[in-house]
Amino acid sequence: MTSASPADLETRLALAEAIGHEAGKLALDYFKRRETLVIETKRDLQDVVSIADRDVENLIRGRIHEAYPHDSILGEEYGLETGTSGYTWVVDPIDGTSPFVNGMPNWCVSIAVLHDGIPVIGVISAPCHDELYVAALGKGATLNGKSLKLDDTRNIRNAVTGIGANNHVTPAFVAKMVEQVLEAGGNFIRNGSGALMLAYVAAGRLVGYYEPYMHAWDCLAGYCLVKEAGGWYHPFPTEGERLTKGSVVLGAAPGAIDDLRKIAGV
Amino acid sequence: MTSASPADLETRLALAEAIGHEAGKLALDYFKRRETLVIETKRDLQDVVSIADRDVENLIRGRIHEAYPHDSILGEEYGLETGTSGYTWVVDPIDGTSPFVNGMPNWCVSIAVLHDGIPVIGVISAPCHDELYVAALGKGATLNGKSLKLDDTRNIRNAVTGIGANNHVTPAFVAKMVEQVLEAGGNFIRNGSGALMLAYVAAGRLVGYYEPYMHAWDCLAGYCLVKEAGGWYHPFPTEGERLTKGSVVLGAAPGAIDDLRKIAGV
Repeated sequence: MTSASPADLETRLALAEAIGHEAGKLALDYFKRRETLVIETKRDLQDVVSIADRDVENLIRGRIHEAYPHDSILGEEYGLETGTSGYTWVVDPIDGTSPFVNGMPNWCVSIAVLHDGIPVIGVISAPCHDELYVAALGKGATLNGKSLKLDDTRNIRNAVTGIGANNHVTPAFVAKMVEQVLEAGGNFIRNGSGALMLAYVAAGRLVGYYEPYMHAWDCLAGYCLVKEAGGWYHPFPTEGERLTKGSVVLGAAPGAIDDLRKIAGV
Repeated sequence: MTSASPADLETRLALAEAIGHEAGKLALDYFKRRETLVIETKRDLQDVVSIADRDVENLIRGRIHEAYPHDSILGEEYGLETGTSGYTWVVDPIDGTSPFVNGMPNWCVSIAVLHDGIPVIGVISAPCHDELYVAALGKGATLNGKSLKLDDTRNIRNAVTGIGANNHVTPAFVAKMVEQVLEAGGNFIRNGSGALMLAYVAAGRLVGYYEPYMHAWDCLAGYCLVKEAGGWYHPFPTEGERLTKGSVVLGAAPGAIDDLRKIAGV
């Protein structure tokens, strides 16, 4: 495979940003109407979120198909469609469905583009906070157009670490993660959206994000953002079938890398 | 002591709501300017937050003094001023200083009024989300004017629990809390502001909030909100000196009380 041409990257970046904006708007509309929709559709909140999830992913897939019919697309809701261009879009229409369904603002739309197995574009839209995070390989990261650059003096002792987990890991394992972060002199938050917490790492709001088992659609956009803001990430396995499976995820600001790698064992 | 007269409660409620709005606006102004202020004042972010904290508390104290010179006031920054009216205002100017200092939106202003040792008014302003939570004993709870009423069918297995902790408890204790919530089939978030998470319990966004050691200014407004929305709280010791010390805090929706009391051991 050859590396992404600047023109190919540029046009896909513009599209990813436009889709992020549009998809965020659609998801926010569902979020605001979720209680009315429960009554109208005579379904429960979880069903309404599933409808929103699928509708937002369909919007994103449609926009990509129109512009790049030969690109691959992997989305949380509809799986992998394989194209031939060498570019793969990796999409989570709503990351943080638990905050979304419960009426909390910490959820986002996550859109990444992979090339040669590496996330070359990352766009995260957090509509409740009116924030759009955008990054492309070698082009830096921005939040609402403002450049993001990580501070080297921040570490897990003078800043906050984000954590996440799901049913793939045991309660005892999650407890151990928490204990290790605290024992190392750190503090943690968990806001319910791993993709958003990775964006927060890029924005310097968190000094790192660690989740022991996460999917590509949850982390790849955030990874690109963290890298381009001056941070580091533990590579996600993207070869063939591996792209659709879970893996340990860790993104960190420079001063937190060593401590968090020790905790995550990577 | 006699119970609060309806007129006394009504006028203090109107004041608390007005102060919540005004204090939230001032805190939000500091939040938005925090990076500029670091440069202007040649101080670090932590100093700027301390200045904001004190300035917001001074605003709140000033407004209370003007209207009720004989009320007691307990605030996180300036401690207890003892009055004679039988009413005590309990104030946290910025709850969630860690999110605040790091640029995350999950912080709030918390204002409670105690009478006969019980929180009879609770106002929480979350300025980044443009949300004002208001409750008074026997008068219900509202979010931006909309009535809050908890759903009896929600429990720790089908909803999310909020947790918090600080240096008063060991890493092993926090790990155990996390493990117990997960082992009971629950899920947790920690957004960095205990007062805000208690407001989220009142709003039905979380099914409960548990923190093993918390101060009166962090929890009393949230407690009033939870109670008035139809939930339950573990009483905070308010007699004499005890009011200024920490205690275990637990607020819950009806369906989560038993499970969370078991976890918290209260």
